[in-house]
Amino acid sequence: MKIALIGAGNVAWHLGKALYGAGHEIVAVYSPTSGHREALAKELAPAIPLPSPDLTATDAELVLIAIPDAALASVASTIKVAKGTIVAHNSGSQPLAVLQSITGGRAGVFYPLQTFSKSKPVDFKSIPVLLETEDENTLQTLQAVAASITKEVHLVDSTKRKQLHLAAVFACNFTNHLLGISRTLLHDAQLPDSLLQPLIQETIAKALQQHPFQVQTGPAVRHDHNVIDEHMQMLQEHPTYQQVYRLLTQSIQEQHMNGKSTEE
Amino acid sequence: MKIALIGAGNVAWHLGKALYGAGHEIVAVYSPTSGHREALAKELAPAIPLPSPDLTATDAELVLIAIPDAALASVASTIKVAKGTIVAHNSGSQPLAVLQSITGGRAGVFYPLQTFSKSKPVDFKSIPVLLETEDENTLQTLQAVAASITKEVHLVDSTKRKQLHLAAVFACNFTNHLLGISRTLLHDAQLPDSLLQPLIQETIAKALQQHPFQVQTGPAVRHDHNVIDEHMQMLQEHPTYQQVYRLLTQSIQEQHMNGKSTEE
Repeated sequence: MKIALIGAGNVAWHLGKALYGAGHEIVAVYSPTSGHREALAKELAPAIPLPSPDLTATDAELVLIAIPDAALASVASTIKVAKGTIVAHNSGSQPLAVLQSITGGRAGVFYPLQTFSKSKPVDFKSIPVLLETEDENTLQTLQAVAASITKEVHLVDSTKRKQLHLAAVFACNFTNHLLGISRTLLHDAQLPDSLLQPLIQETIAKALQQHPFQVQTGPAVRHDHNVIDEHMQMLQEHPTYQQVYRLLTQSIQEQHMNGKSTEE
Repeated sequence: MKIALIGAGNVAWHLGKALYGAGHEIVAVYSPTSGHREALAKELAPAIPLPSPDLTATDAELVLIAIPDAALASVASTIKVAKGTIVAHNSGSQPLAVLQSITGGRAGVFYPLQTFSKSKPVDFKSIPVLLETEDENTLQTLQAVAASITKEVHLVDSTKRKQLHLAAVFACNFTNHLLGISRTLLHDAQLPDSLLQPLIQETIAKALQQHPFQVQTGPAVRHDHNVIDEHMQMLQEHPTYQQVYRLLTQSIQEQHMNGKSTEE
């Protein structure tokens, strides 16, 4: 498959290399930053670095847009492709319809569900790639390309992708914030960050094996009000963390009560 | 070292086997449940299963109490040891002073900071063991025993152990609850749990490598109010989750503002 990339950031970099490694020909790379597009095109030689998102002169059959969600709508409106070219974006939060301004092309979503850092190698094989399109031929092409780099190919429409994104906000963005609060409290107590790491890793491993609600531990689920009151006292210097502690304790206790009543 | 165990649950089981494997002699195991004490004593042969926490007839030099935090105070008051025997508990939330009722013995804390499941093997070498005692000789003994099973031996007094426990509530109990909410939302949308697993694992790996506040992503830190408003709408069926979403979004935004203002 002849593929062009719009974007030369972390996602484009890892995705481009995975596709290149799977035997696809990367024909062109566009990025507004000349250094970025040239560096990535060099990695994916003989890809051509393009100074504009006009791909009509290339023989790309598939154009993958790998740029930040916030920039997608405005960049999409500037993309030009030959008739029949598939254009797919990689955004978790944006609908398929954000590509409707691209005339002549066939629109799709090709969304690798992972967070990428430039310096960290990625094993694509277990990363889910979520596909969406309204056209059967386009779907077959996207499926073949996705299957060439991962075992995990899923069809997820725009509505479900939004629900998935909301679930990811809880599981990733919010847990990250709680880990940050935890680290702040360790620093306040002059305790090393490393102390909690094995416990955190094991907690997450357990939560991924069983339903987290069934393996919930701690003072909230035990209704240990002596410890809860003491913790609230200890958080007096951090009023927002105190509110977070109170609300999550309440949420755990409600959950536990509901879980019990449905079992009965 | 001749060691006796009070308790035959998950912690006693893993800790007993680690100490036994390191060459210590486990002389006795007490549990109120005869099946439990006999099963563990058999694993640690020639350990004797004891039907009461009276260890005066054994030649134990160190008695390790590995029972749930909530039972510690009441069980501790029933323990009998020969004069000079070290008695150490393994609780994160209970102070050293909970052992003051044990007369003749020397009190300590020997707290392996990990969550244990009976069926899951544990590599003790990287599990932090937290020690506390008021007696220099006792400290040396506890340090030697801890160092025989792990590289991670730390002195942490009762006040700091409480602060550590509070940090663990945020990092483990609360993150587990958020992972449960996330899974509920996936089920609501009829999406498979496995879909988010690689992203969760990578998010946690990143949060352990760098300060989580510095790698925060998502709609809150981007102040993406379109997405935030849409998520609040989607959570209408779950009013508590909606409150959690609102408060954690606010906490992330406050944190980000504070982080910025201290940099400037």
